[in-house]
Amino acid sequence: MVRFQPCHTSLFFLHVMSSIRYCINGKLISGITPTNRGFAYGDGIFRTMRLLDGELQDWPLHYQTLVADCSKIQIVCPSAELLMQEFKYFMASALGTDQSSGIIKIIITRGDGARGYAPPAICEPTRVFIHSALPEYPPEIYSTGVALYTCQTRLASQPLLAGIKHLNRLENVLARAELKDPRFFDGILRDYDEHVIEGVSGNLFISKDGVVMTPPLDRCGVAGVMRQKILDWYKTQGRPVVTTTLVMENLLTADAVVIVNSVYGVLQVTHIDEQAIATNEWARELRAQLNYVVH
Amino acid sequence: MVRFQPCHTSLFFLHVMSSIRYCINGKLISGITPTNRGFAYGDGIFRTMRLLDGELQDWPLHYQTLVADCSKIQIVCPSAELLMQEFKYFMASALGTDQSSGIIKIIITRGDGARGYAPPAICEPTRVFIHSALPEYPPEIYSTGVALYTCQTRLASQPLLAGIKHLNRLENVLARAELKDPRFFDGILRDYDEHVIEGVSGNLFISKDGVVMTPPLDRCGVAGVMRQKILDWYKTQGRPVVTTTLVMENLLTADAVVIVNSVYGVLQVTHIDEQAIATNEWARELRAQLNYVVH
Repeated sequence: MVRFQPCHTSLFFLHVMSSIRYCINGKLISGITPTNRGFAYGDGIFRTMRLLDGELQDWPLHYQTLVADCSKIQIVCPSAELLMQEFKYFMASALGTDQSSGIIKIIITRGDGARGYAPPAICEPTRVFIHSALPEYPPEIYSTGVALYTCQTRLASQPLLAGIKHLNRLENVLARAELKDPRFFDGILRDYDEHVIEGVSGNLFISKDGVVMTPPLDRCGVAGVMRQKILDWYKTQGRPVVTTTLVMENLLTADAVVIVNSVYGVLQVTHIDEQAIATNEWARELRAQLNYVVH
Repeated sequence: MVRFQPCHTSLFFLHVMSSIRYCINGKLISGITPTNRGFAYGDGIFRTMRLLDGELQDWPLHYQTLVADCSKIQIVCPSAELLMQEFKYFMASALGTDQSSGIIKIIITRGDGARGYAPPAICEPTRVFIHSALPEYPPEIYSTGVALYTCQTRLASQPLLAGIKHLNRLENVLARAELKDPRFFDGILRDYDEHVIEGVSGNLFISKDGVVMTPPLDRCGVAGVMRQKILDWYKTQGRPVVTTTLVMENLLTADAVVIVNSVYGVLQVTHIDEQAIATNEWARELRAQLNYVVH
């Protein structure tokens, strides 16, 4: 008998839908043309980050990642100045409302295009800011941890797009759609070689005999900013994380497993499918070390 | 010295941009919300077809394909009645203009969503019609044929999405962006096992010693409607096309190679990279057999 608690988040999304606000290319509008290449081909990238007291958390690292991701698909990322100017305008327009915290998703696409795959010779990248409330996570995800299921959906190996948080996310959609059981918080994605790559919505780390490990993301997967923060932190501690191929057995026999992203921070994994796994205080310690503020 | 003629089509797209018209969910508007799952994740499908004298060419086959593609990613395709009603309204709104011919692109997405990959429990698929003029192809593509380049961009193997014309098209964007030389009409896409899969914008057939062959699309690639028409036609002739693994050598030593899609029809391939390949009257014959009307 599995005793862990439901933490299905779908219901929480419903009541925040109405409060979603947008800023597109510096204007408070809600319309993208259907010829925008982000819509037509998923020709763009995005990042999701926390907003706390009007400040974007880890903005320098997020911006650096936006630039790197854009570059990999040959989009010239808008300047930090332009993005900050539009963000500040967006925030100012919400004065008097309870929107100084929550989540900001930034989407950058190649811009508007004509018909056909060829990137237009001249185009201005589209900048979209979306504000939404932080999901009301059950407190148990921080006090106890979360259960993950093993997805049947596999990630294809495509080194050209690996690591990038691009808008071609059908694999994640199919994997997330597998989740019917409310006891599970998220899924574990593997590639076709049985290697564990990541969670559907976050990156995975394991610790075993004092060594911290995470899967390489050079063939598929998304390299999250929280993952990068953790890699950077361990480096400053003089005990770098080992990036190495992992299979399910490594997770099941680890001393601890955590799933991480910029929104929910670092969460202890307590179960994988029906099986309880070893847990300790790792997630709580990492949150403290990274100054992650639990909502 | 290569003597084939330039047929770069990018320039032709520019002057038709201004005449692009849209119909979204039955309304003559041009705005998609940024939370539409087609924009957020490429969570949808599309097809492009010819419009001739106000009629969508091969509509029954296109609709059948829309339904099949939607089903593969768990979207309930809107009814043919609804799509036809919206198409007729869209066409009626263009009366008096020169828009009874051209190209219609139909995009169907899962609909509007909240934040997160999970498909909403309840959502109405988004229907988008986009009308644009037929590209002004150089007459040589029909009289002589076209040259193709071999793309460095490879297609990832993902059986779950193979064959579907979904909105996750970054591979095609990267492949098309390789084309700098105006002598080339389109590129040839291979997978990571050196198998030829398709053109960037169309499917490939070869003939050798009286046998017609085309690559399987069960691991990657898009199964086009013109490809299906050709498969169906050969079947009715009692000499079915052989679906079989092909490598570049098979194309270079074929008796003839054609590239096909619903917009430009069937084109003879005359060159691959710098190499001339054997040609015959196959493309012209296929166009006649399939009643393709050259613009």
